[in-house]
Amino acid sequence: MISIHPLCDIPEIRAGDDLAAVLRDSLAKAGLWPLQTGDVLVVTQKILSKAEGRMVALDSVEPGAQALELAATTRKDPRLVELVLRESSSVVRAVPHVLITRHRLGHVMANGGIDRSNIGPGDEDRALLLPLDPDGSARGLLAALAGPEAAGIGIVVSDSFGRPWRHGVVGVAIGAAGLPALVDRRGEEDRDGRRLEVTQIALADQIATAATLVTGEGAESVPAALLRGVALPEGDAGAGALVRPLEEDLFR
Amino acid sequence: MISIHPLCDIPEIRAGDDLAAVLRDSLAKAGLWPLQTGDVLVVTQKILSKAEGRMVALDSVEPGAQALELAATTRKDPRLVELVLRESSSVVRAVPHVLITRHRLGHVMANGGIDRSNIGPGDEDRALLLPLDPDGSARGLLAALAGPEAAGIGIVVSDSFGRPWRHGVVGVAIGAAGLPALVDRRGEEDRDGRRLEVTQIALADQIATAATLVTGEGAESVPAALLRGVALPEGDAGAGALVRPLEEDLFR
Repeated sequence: MISIHPLCDIPEIRAGDDLAAVLRDSLAKAGLWPLQTGDVLVVTQKILSKAEGRMVALDSVEPGAQALELAATTRKDPRLVELVLRESSSVVRAVPHVLITRHRLGHVMANGGIDRSNIGPGDEDRALLLPLDPDGSARGLLAALAGPEAAGIGIVVSDSFGRPWRHGVVGVAIGAAGLPALVDRRGEEDRDGRRLEVTQIALADQIATAATLVTGEGAESVPAALLRGVALPEGDAGAGALVRPLEEDLFR
Repeated sequence: MISIHPLCDIPEIRAGDDLAAVLRDSLAKAGLWPLQTGDVLVVTQKILSKAEGRMVALDSVEPGAQALELAATTRKDPRLVELVLRESSSVVRAVPHVLITRHRLGHVMANGGIDRSNIGPGDEDRALLLPLDPDGSARGLLAALAGPEAAGIGIVVSDSFGRPWRHGVVGVAIGAAGLPALVDRRGEEDRDGRRLEVTQIALADQIATAATLVTGEGAESVPAALLRGVALPEGDAGAGALVRPLEEDLFR
């Protein structure tokens, strides 16, 4: 049995806050401290980005020529589009109200992962970028919360993505530590001894999505969750392992 | 707190089996019967398809001209390709070892959702098609397991899909009842009073993915799971609501 616990008692996070300490306090208040084998702590991108000071004042952004052109196409704020371009390696799709890029971290997503809801009161003129290195941040949190000898304990940094061909967002992992974000089962057999047709499992995405059942998106937003009782396979690979290079993409 | 319970004591399912009775027995053995408000029972496509007699002997399939051509391109069994074409409304991508189509249910997926692993001993020459009407089947299971006055109890029929741009499969919903498969939050505000940027949530996909953390894919395959403690929003829309029409697709 796996349980998913919302971590509710988390104050508004500001740049420079010690996020590990905040999470430890919240886990303790919920009776979930210390972490134990089979625990995966899911931290939403938003509080990690805030702690890492990734908030940008839009007034400080000077849109370049490409941003101005894309802003006209997409009908978006040119300063926001400039930030998206700075965060991205290529533009996948730009039409009215839609700007999809490949983020420098490799993920294909809308608006460069830049967030403008629940970023704090009075933040009409600010934007929140993704963390610089979410896999590295996950490793840092794991070391701080589970110690150097942690085994069978994981951290996932989550975000919400839309998807081709399907309505609605689901959770995805943009950072992970202490677990194999991608589980490779090629060569294993099913219970009748046939070779498995499904061979790679996006474990960190599955965990991020499970957590969204308690973290939510709106006014009741909960910025972190603990999954307890997860049978973590051996291995340790960050969310970078989930990124499929554009030239390997099978759907286009 | 949400808990996810694997349902392990499920015998090999055969065409015509009373799946609702089998699931009720399994829930009772696990101490999870009767169902209660906040429960969502996730049933993998495989056992639903088996119960509905969707197994096809490949020897009975005569490949047509298009199947022969696509089989040569994809290097797949022409009889399997014929079945995929019969199950699909259009071909999205066909290259060596890859055949992605839009299924007649609307989902874009590999091999028409046809399954050849864990379909039973000695089944080298058989293939398992998706259920004919997974949303209808979900409604039938809900009525049988929760009664006509069920409130706050849901059924999700799950499958595993690959995705563009990301490695590894995750769970998706191909059928749902008793809950809104897609939650539309357009017009709601975040906790700072800003309009929510993320406005549609693929609830049934989130639930299907959470269940995959206990159902797995390999020899230890568990064919159903119960989520307990889910805050289900009001509404009842099947998994058809998750399908984005091709002409609305934003990523291509």
